[in-house]
Amino acid sequence: MPIVEIHTDQYRVPLETPLSDSTHGEMSDFGLVVVRLVDERGQIGLGYTYTVNNIGTGAIWKIIDSDLVPLLQGADPGAIDTLWKKMWWRLHFVGRGGMASFAMAAVDIALWDLRGQRESLPLWRLLGGDSAEVPAYAGGIDLDLSVQGLCAQAEGFLDQGFHAIKMKVGRARLSEDVERVSAMRELLGPNFPLMADANMRWSTDQAIAAADALEKFNLFWLEEPIVPEDLAGHARLGRGTRVPIATGENLHSVHEFEHLMTYGHVDFPEPDAATLGGITPWIEVAKIAQDRGLPVTSHGIHDIHVHLLAGVPNASYLEVHGFGLERFLEQRLQLKDGKAIAPDSPGHGVALDLDGLRPFRQATGSSHD
Amino acid sequence: MPIVEIHTDQYRVPLETPLSDSTHGEMSDFGLVVVRLVDERGQIGLGYTYTVNNIGTGAIWKIIDSDLVPLLQGADPGAIDTLWKKMWWRLHFVGRGGMASFAMAAVDIALWDLRGQRESLPLWRLLGGDSAEVPAYAGGIDLDLSVQGLCAQAEGFLDQGFHAIKMKVGRARLSEDVERVSAMRELLGPNFPLMADANMRWSTDQAIAAADALEKFNLFWLEEPIVPEDLAGHARLGRGTRVPIATGENLHSVHEFEHLMTYGHVDFPEPDAATLGGITPWIEVAKIAQDRGLPVTSHGIHDIHVHLLAGVPNASYLEVHGFGLERFLEQRLQLKDGKAIAPDSPGHGVALDLDGLRPFRQATGSSHD
Repeated sequence: MPIVEIHTDQYRVPLETPLSDSTHGEMSDFGLVVVRLVDERGQIGLGYTYTVNNIGTGAIWKIIDSDLVPLLQGADPGAIDTLWKKMWWRLHFVGRGGMASFAMAAVDIALWDLRGQRESLPLWRLLGGDSAEVPAYAGGIDLDLSVQGLCAQAEGFLDQGFHAIKMKVGRARLSEDVERVSAMRELLGPNFPLMADANMRWSTDQAIAAADALEKFNLFWLEEPIVPEDLAGHARLGRGTRVPIATGENLHSVHEFEHLMTYGHVDFPEPDAATLGGITPWIEVAKIAQDRGLPVTSHGIHDIHVHLLAGVPNASYLEVHGFGLERFLEQRLQLKDGKAIAPDSPGHGVALDLDGLRPFRQATGSSHD
Repeated sequence: MPIVEIHTDQYRVPLETPLSDSTHGEMSDFGLVVVRLVDERGQIGLGYTYTVNNIGTGAIWKIIDSDLVPLLQGADPGAIDTLWKKMWWRLHFVGRGGMASFAMAAVDIALWDLRGQRESLPLWRLLGGDSAEVPAYAGGIDLDLSVQGLCAQAEGFLDQGFHAIKMKVGRARLSEDVERVSAMRELLGPNFPLMADANMRWSTDQAIAAADALEKFNLFWLEEPIVPEDLAGHARLGRGTRVPIATGENLHSVHEFEHLMTYGHVDFPEPDAATLGGITPWIEVAKIAQDRGLPVTSHGIHDIHVHLLAGVPNASYLEVHGFGLERFLEQRLQLKDGKAIAPDSPGHGVALDLDGLRPFRQATGSSHD
């Protein structure tokens, strides 16, 4: 049942509300690259990846269209591991992470979706999960909000039924972060899971100082305190604070996670299937974490990650953060009592409104056998 | 003196003679991306990067054209470090190595070339070098040659005046590698610098076995015995053999070199300015190596690397290997008594025959103030 048709589309989508964090500044739009793989029976696997402020989107589309499609056309979509390795080695000299991982991710997610269709199983069952429910947190992108605005946002999250919330830190002065986290802790009560995300804003010394100042607020985790490649800095952080550290959204290969876990330090590895090369390496990172007694969490594209976290035994919280894609989904993520529920339809069950996306299309390609 | 014009061109160039090694199989063509930065005075900085078998070339061109040109237009080309950091952070989420580093390399090399023009200094003097001469070796891409063919190739290199030669290893059986290295050693005499390159063909155990079998042939270095991201494997190799290890052509960030030197093992770090993000990070790797008492060598684009090795105090051999670009250069690398000589013209002195390249052009872009 080979792949007989491949469609690749690139979109640039404006955000309805611009967002901001300590590193990316204002984010006004995002890039989306969609891959559809069609097998001989006409079943369709859908995969996608995204970019921030549309940076790199054209290149990612180009990698798929020029360098991966020739490898996929006519291939057996069931041999996912083999195809993944072929993509890795085809792109190796220019790849091993970065944009190559984004491109491979869109393809790999489509392969897993197609496998789910063929086996008539939702992705979370295909992966061996025993429950569709995953504890979820609301990811606020709120560094520029006032303390009042931050708390109002949190109340909105509580009204939506969330039982865990993440806020941004990394303001110009640490005292501002302390004030903001303190206000949130007061609002939410002492044991409510509250995470804080610094988006790589600090040096290691600053991060240790921040962890010291924030320790009394019982953070569930402190996310991305420093740049991802500073392994020695992470090791020092791990020795220097008891506040649990989450990181991973900027790591784009299994190797980078291995190095961080071996030579650095992380308590909550946070792989993003859309930027790591897909579901195949995401599961690998989850297993490496499990071998070390660590949980795994997620970043972005919650509609895919809800399946992955439901499919592994060491799941921590799912980040719920749609990044503007929600309005092009035929069905939004189901939430109940603070838990996200993975759909029961075959594959990942994400149906994109391609007609609604058409006005935002930047490039398109099709390949037929 | 801001940048007022930017030209970006993408080429796919067939090799006159297909090449082969243990990992890339047959290489039939290469990709070339050329950046020209023009300042207000009309001075032009030329930079370029290349790909193997043209994989990734379109994406690299697209990164420059879509994501880097807006940042460069109107910028001060003298603020190279600042521009480099801006490029790094602009591409950060999709970058930190891989194709982003190739794209940044073409721009960074153009910035350094322009700086040389402005200061009327050749690059090697700009970097602080005191001699234009660099010991050079001929890099044979010869895994598929017979032993006779291999030795005939070596005799050709000797006739060209080379005093050092690199050959490929990684044949199906280790005994074949032993036979080939033995024949070369016999031809060249006991003290002639002979390197061997395995192109990541082996596991760590196989690499240690190969190093054991090849130790008696006094290799100057054994290159890329294993995959670049296996830090623990490199550490084990470093403990397991006295044969010096070279590696680096597949590492595309300073961080990857730092990690290899800190947690893995390498005796001859081998950064490639065209794939590492340019001259700026190449110099950084050379300095880190120097701090650890290590030399630095090069990979590919010898016309640029001859300047860089002449410009640093810890230079080892220059790889002379043009990869098909030679026929589009107005002046070929000067060789004398086994040494390469960096040109004395301002900048890197590489003049590409853009008219000759035109039939191979795949994409082009121009931006004017």
